[in-house]
Amino acid sequence: MEQAAGRIGEGAGASMSGRARSRHQAAPSRRVNIDRVFHALGDPTRRAIVETLSERPQSVSRLAAPLAITLAAVVQHLQILEASGLVRTEKAGRVRTCQIEPAGLSVAETWISERRAIWERRFDRLGDLLAEPDEE
Amino acid sequence: MEQAAGRIGEGAGASMSGRARSRHQAAPSRRVNIDRVFHALGDPTRRAIVETLSERPQSVSRLAAPLAITLAAVVQHLQILEASGLVRTEKAGRVRTCQIEPAGLSVAETWISERRAIWERRFDRLGDLLAEPDEE
Repeated sequence: MEQAAGRIGEGAGASMSGRARSRHQAAPSRRVNIDRVFHALGDPTRRAIVETLSERPQSVSRLAAPLAITLAAVVQHLQILEASGLVRTEKAGRVRTCQIEPAGLSVAETWISERRAIWERRFDRLGDLLAEPDEE
Repeated sequence: MEQAAGRIGEGAGASMSGRARSRHQAAPSRRVNIDRVFHALGDPTRRAIVETLSERPQSVSRLAAPLAITLAAVVQHLQILEASGLVRTEKAGRVRTCQIEPAGLSVAETWISERRAIWERRFDRLGDLLAEPDEE
């Protein structure tokens, strides 16, 4: 899993989303894969990157500067984030800029809130049952 | 990571949450670890288990019945879910019952919705900027 996708920071400007297709269900976006989204978010450095990119787009090198890891490690995390559909990168000249891909977070958020809606309904029903007057 | 925590379906009824403490930040609940929550949700079988348990609590064997994997594999997934704080299990006699632990999903949902709030504010500001009349 960790040895995901293409080339960031070198090579052609082509997107690396080709491998990000969902294997288990129709993805709402061609770029988003819910398994990979959750997996990608399970790492504190990748969450820190998503946090930074939520604020503003950044070049790979500016993104790497405050992180206490090598540029190569940042690039690897970005590959995983891009393969999951959480981040989009674009190369202009020699600079690759990274930005958040809202669809990725959306897919995860929707899945979670659907689960919550279901168990909240269940607890409401349980509350109603307990509140019913005893017929006996 | 995959060889997580204690013993489900055998041994004492003790909770397996002891290893679930956060390494990277103060967890909102002693049982919840955001790295592990996202990691746990990155697997389709574990998400299927969470989906089932959102509907109602289940014994381990009833939970395993519709899944096309061995009971041992289900137990392993449950260990990961319990270590992350997404699921709670309790043993009564010979039966271990599994139920959703709302705090786990909550932590993930809060993290995501905070990110979304940040980039939505950013896009609003960008929209405002673009809508400003040209001073020149």
